[in-house]
This record gives sequence, C-alpha cells and structure tokens, in this order.
Amino acid sequence: MKEFFHVETIEGVLAHAASFSAVGTETVALAECLGRVLAEDAYSDVDIPDFSRSTMDGFAVKASSTFGASEANPAYLNVRGQVKMGVRPDFSIGPGEAARIATGGMLPEGADSVIMIEHTDLLDDTTIEAYRSVAPGQHVIEKGEDIRHAEPALASGTRIRPQEAGLLAACGRTAVTVFRRPMVGIISTGDEVVPVDQVPGEGQVRDINTQSLSGQVMAAGGVPVVFGIVRDNRDDLMKKCRGALETTDMVMISGGSSVGARDFTVEVLDTLPDTGILVHGISISPGKPTILARSGGKAFWGLPGHAVSAMVVFAAVVRPFLDRLCGLTQTVRQFPVKAVLSRNLASAQGRVDYVRVRLDRDEAGGPVMAEPILGKSGLINTMVKADGLIAIGIDTEGLDQGAAVEVMPL
Amino acid sequence: MKEFFHVETIEGVLAHAASFSAVGTETVALAECLGRVLAEDAYSDVDIPDFSRSTMDGFAVKASSTFGASEANPAYLNVRGQVKMGVRPDFSIGPGEAARIATGGMLPEGADSVIMIEHTDLLDDTTIEAYRSVAPGQHVIEKGEDIRHAEPALASGTRIRPQEAGLLAACGRTAVTVFRRPMVGIISTGDEVVPVDQVPGEGQVRDINTQSLSGQVMAAGGVPVVFGIVRDNRDDLMKKCRGALETTDMVMISGGSSVGARDFTVEVLDTLPDTGILVHGISISPGKPTILARSGGKAFWGLPGHAVSAMVVFAAVVRPFLDRLCGLTQTVRQFPVKAVLSRNLASAQGRVDYVRVRLDRDEAGGPVMAEPILGKSGLINTMVKADGLIAIGIDTEGLDQGAAVEVMPL
Repeated sequence: MKEFFHVETIEGVLAHAASFSAVGTETVALAECLGRVLAEDAYSDVDIPDFSRSTMDGFAVKASSTFGASEANPAYLNVRGQVKMGVRPDFSIGPGEAARIATGGMLPEGADSVIMIEHTDLLDDTTIEAYRSVAPGQHVIEKGEDIRHAEPALASGTRIRPQEAGLLAACGRTAVTVFRRPMVGIISTGDEVVPVDQVPGEGQVRDINTQSLSGQVMAAGGVPVVFGIVRDNRDDLMKKCRGALETTDMVMISGGSSVGARDFTVEVLDTLPDTGILVHGISISPGKPTILARSGGKAFWGLPGHAVSAMVVFAAVVRPFLDRLCGLTQTVRQFPVKAVLSRNLASAQGRVDYVRVRLDRDEAGGPVMAEPILGKSGLINTMVKADGLIAIGIDTEGLDQGAAVEVMPL
Repeated sequence: MKEFFHVETIEGVLAHAASFSAVGTETVALAECLGRVLAEDAYSDVDIPDFSRSTMDGFAVKASSTFGASEANPAYLNVRGQVKMGVRPDFSIGPGEAARIATGGMLPEGADSVIMIEHTDLLDDTTIEAYRSVAPGQHVIEKGEDIRHAEPALASGTRIRPQEAGLLAACGRTAVTVFRRPMVGIISTGDEVVPVDQVPGEGQVRDINTQSLSGQVMAAGGVPVVFGIVRDNRDDLMKKCRGALETTDMVMISGGSSVGARDFTVEVLDTLPDTGILVHGISISPGKPTILARSGGKAFWGLPGHAVSAMVVFAAVVRPFLDRLCGLTQTVRQFPVKAVLSRNLASAQGRVDYVRVRLDRDEAGGPVMAEPILGKSGLINTMVKADGLIAIGIDTEGLDQGAAVEVMPL
C-alpha cells in the first residue's frame, strides 16, 4: 500500500488558509447585497437620526418642567402646538410648555424629552396635566445616537445580514462594494460515475458530489462552476484541471479514492506549472485521503469520492478557505448547538472523527439529544438524516453516553 | 389613549398560521433547487446503489474463505481477476478465490465481502495471503442500501439542503417540483420616511424597514416585492394595500406606530372586501402594536415602525407564517444555541420580552455567554451588534445573571 507522504493535522491544514487571498470586488445594488461580504468600511452621509426624535406618542417638554409631578401633584403645561411628521417644528419650547408629538417626530428647540400621552390629561385646548416626571433624554433618540456619520457604520469583511442591509439603507447606500462571489470549479472523477440524466448501467452510479458540493459552495456564498465527470485518465484529468484552474478561483476534484486514481491526481499536480502539494492526507475520518495543493496562488482540493466524506471534508476543512476567498475577515460569529450524546461512541486516537448526528428533544427547554447516525460514508441518506456533525478530538478514545457535545450544523 | 381591542398571546397568534395555505408549485432544474421546499415525494428510478459495491481498495471474496485467517495462519486465495470500474465483472468468485477490486467497484457474483489490501500480501501473480477474516457484507454497500427505488427518498415539504440535492441527483432527478417562493409585499409608511436615495431633510429619516424586512423575507425563502413608501394618508394607503394584496401572497406594512397611523391601517382593513382583523396587539415586547388580518385568504401584517421592533416581530411571529406559505411541513429542525446570561435582566410579567444578545466565549468548549444589548428599538445598530434573540417568558419577572438561556439566531 502506498503511504500518504504527509498526513497533517486539521489545525495544520487550516493554517494554510491565511496564505490565500480574497477575490476581487464589485459594486452591487443595495437590494442585491444580502449575504454578500462588504469590501469597504461603510459610512453614513448623515447622522442617524439627524435630529432628536421622539420614540413615543406624547408631548415634547423640557424635563425640568415635569420634575416632582405625580398623580397627586400634576404639572400643568401649556401646549404650544403640534409637531408635524417629517418637518422641523416652527416653534420652540420653554419651561412649562409642551408640544404634541407622535412617534418619530422631531423635538422642537428647547425640548429635551417626551412624556407619554398615557401620563397626561388634556384639561382644555391648550393645557395638559402631566402625572409623571421625565428625565432629560427620556423617550428620545438623540441626533447621531444610532450612527454618527464620521464613524464607520460597518467594517469591511462583514457578512451582510438583513440588519446590516437595513443599516446600509439608513446610511443612504444605494450601492455597496462587496467581494465578488468566488468561483469554485467542481470536477467529479471515476470510471463508474455517470451524469444524473443517465440511467446507471451495471456497476455504475450517478454523480452525487457535483450536486452536494455545489450546494455547499452556494450556501457558503460561492458560485459553483461544474466541469462534469472525468474518467480515470491522466490526460483528460490534466485538461479538466488546467481548464478549471484557469477560469475559477478554487478547484475541488472529488473521487479518486482508489489508490490508482489518487496517483493520477498527484501526477497531474506534479506536472502543472507553479504547483505544489501542501497536504497529502489529513488526520480526520472520514476524509483522510484529502489533498490540498497550491497552483499559481489558487487552492486545489482532491476530495474523497464517497458523498459523505466529501461533504464532511468540505464542512470541516474547505469551508474556512472559501470564507477567506469570500473576504470574510470579521470574526465569523458562529456558535455550535450544545447537545447530549445519546449513546457511547468509540473513536480511534490519532485522528479527529466527525460523526453525523440527528438532534432531538422531548420538550422546549429540555436537553437536546444528539443521536449518532452510524453508516457507511458512501450512503448519502445518512447525511439527509443528519442535522449536524460532532468532532471527537484527536486524543480522545471515544465519548460516553451523556457526554456534552457541540454540533456543527449541516 | 386608544386601547388595543384584542391583545393576543404569541401562541394565540401562531395558531392562526395553520389556517393559511402553501403557495402553488413549479418545476425547477436540479441545479436550482438548493433552499427550495420539495412539493412532491421524491423517488429514485433505481436502487441506490444498483449493485453490491466495494467501499475499500482490496479483494472481493466469500467471507467464509477468510474465516480463521490471522497473521500466524493466513488464508491463501487464488486471484481470479480484476474488477473493472463501472462494469459487471465477467467472472464469479468461489470458495478460496478473490478478485482485485477498487473502491466503488461492483462485487463479482459469489463474493459477499471485501478484504482490505492492507490485510493481504501478494505471493505471486495469482495468489494472495489474507491475514484477517472478514464478515459477510464487510466493506460492501449492498444493492439498495442507500435508497430503495420503491420507497420515497425524500418527503414533500422538506427544505432542500446540499445533501438533499445530492440525494436527488442520485435518484436521477434532473428537475424537481417545489413550492414556488412566496411573494411578500412590503410597504413602508410615515410622513417622515424618505427613500434611501434621498438625503433626509430636517425631521426626516430614511426607510430602513423595506431593506431589513426584504432581507428577512429572502433569508426565509420568499421574494420581497417592494411597494415603497406611502404617506400617512388613508386613500394612498388603501391603494397600495389593494395593489399589494392583489399581486402578492402576503403583505407587510410597517410604520404607523403612532396611534393616528395605526388607525388608518385599521380603517383600510375595515374597508377592504373579504377582510377581517384576526389580531390587534400581541403580548410581546417589542412589537405589541402588531396587527394581523386575513384578506381573501392572504395574511396582512401591520408591523411596528421601529426597525428593531419590525425585525423582532418578523423573526418571532411572521416567520412561521411564511414557512407555512413556503410549503414547509416537515418539522423545521432548528435548535437554539444555549448560552449563559451575563447579567440580570428585568422583564414585565404579562408579556414575552425579546432581548437582543451578543454571544461570546473565551475558549472552544467553554460556556457561551449571552450579553444583552440594551438599547432603544429605534436603533438599528443594536441589531447589527446582536447575534440573536432570547425570549423572557410571559410569567417571568426577569432572569438572573448566570441563567441558562436559548438564543434564536438573527
């Protein structure tokens, strides 16, 4: 048996990610920015809000006019007028005065707070009783309290969620500069693999990996570029790999788990110009026979052929590299689901074992149970049953029933 | 102050979801199905795999030929030939015989297991020594073990993740029937609200909600249809609402937090044909002044105007309705992140309080801390800082520092 010449720990592999660069940038309309990664520090052209704004329906006042007011001893305030929405009030407020204001209205000059309508009574057309005292600033959003126009509202490298899109709207950004979506070339190999639209003959199977890996690339914010199936043939493989490396930002070839096919991939990598193998074998299971090479500044992956193995390697190893290409530099704030293992799990020392689990719990608030889905890594249905993966550490012989585990969602 | 005429618990509101129907279906190409919801039970046209398949590089054998084999006492096997990938072997295996086979190869007739190449030695061109015994079925995926063609591979109502897409590929599904994406009409209201491309004048603010709610709709699998900003004017509002209800599957109008504007919305709903208000006020904070109506079988939402309130109501209340429209009927397998509250939190009884939190932890494996982000619901930057929401129950006066909380990701 041919030995892997450089079996690397997962940490060792991930350390290579820093040596790959983000792809270029492009400008997209605000409505198209969801899920994209910001490639500029975004500023607002104005303070947000640009004026002191009421957060309640009520009366704008000087807080001092209400000090000491109570049910037993209300403050009497003279109503100067009504604040119209969306315009500057054409009057100001002095001590003992009030202006009717709705949520979102601009405070008149002189007013520093709002007393809620529920805490007042109208005595006549121009007089109210106030039953509570308010503090300066109460029920008011101050000018610039949300975002100051001189300070960056969002940092480059941030993934845009709905709230970031909302913030960009507030900043007046009708278009934003984002990293373009990395193009990821996907090649399947194997003499037994046929395209989806073909009925497999005896000894043949349909290509799963192109579809499952494309899905993982899309979910991570990349664009899959499908190069189809290549036979276990050195020249064909070379041609496909060259083509993929020329036109995409990263290449993943799956299959070739058999020693012979793996040899072809290594031969191709040895022949390509400006190409070096960084990793040949990772101390994880499934996924040990994974290859990582650098070819002219681009990452080239040789992934296992089994559908589950290829997906696990993508989730655990490839994804951080793709995040890097996407321009994500702000910490990816992901927190695993904590669960309780439902049964004992054995594991070999010297490698990290990734185990598919299905999550369940009897009642809201109760413990989430992680039920291992044991099954061969050639069975895609085990991934369909799974909600996530748990990792059993390299120095761990196994986990006991009841152990606390962290689940990476799938 | 005008009283809400029907303040409903959140459970009471969510119970209405069942009375709305999923939108229609459409057929999409396999490559376009990621994230969509399956609208058919999907079957495979063949067993997957359609033959017994090796999961290792090695030799296909009758397991019984290896029984009792060990390093000290190897079994000697006669090599009948080599299995070619992707074709049926043209020979069979008898007792004491073996066939060279690679991962993914089809087992010859007579063979029931595979012995790994690592556990054999080649004695001469046609003889191997086997140092281990294998069990029947070992290192083999049986015909139909992944998916049987007579059994549904995926159930209608399932959200398609990368692995489901892979499974559909294995099933030969080049196209699948999915629910179409629900169209969600989005209307912003408020005399003070101006479009993003306009510099706000004194007393004006830009429209945030159109963008943040559009993002939430997209993230949930819907298609936002933007109807823009309507002034606080009954006739304009009526026209926009009619238009939105005619052309979309659900309508969300945001703003009108002020009593007057809310009154307009209620008036419009009262005037529209075949329309009834189901909920007027929900015992949650933020988001109490939310309206839910049914108009001709479609859900119509009046959401609060404050950016944070509108997003919280969408996440906690509207989203399950949209899931329903999307056709999701298989349990949505979502599990919250468990965290430890970093400080005391007060809460009023009689309502569910949704609190924005930022998550953090010092080290992998350590407890995830949930740090409340306190701030007015008019400040969109508080949502940008937040990783999720925690809910403080209706009968709870507050939570203590150190309390275990469950976080709904944002």
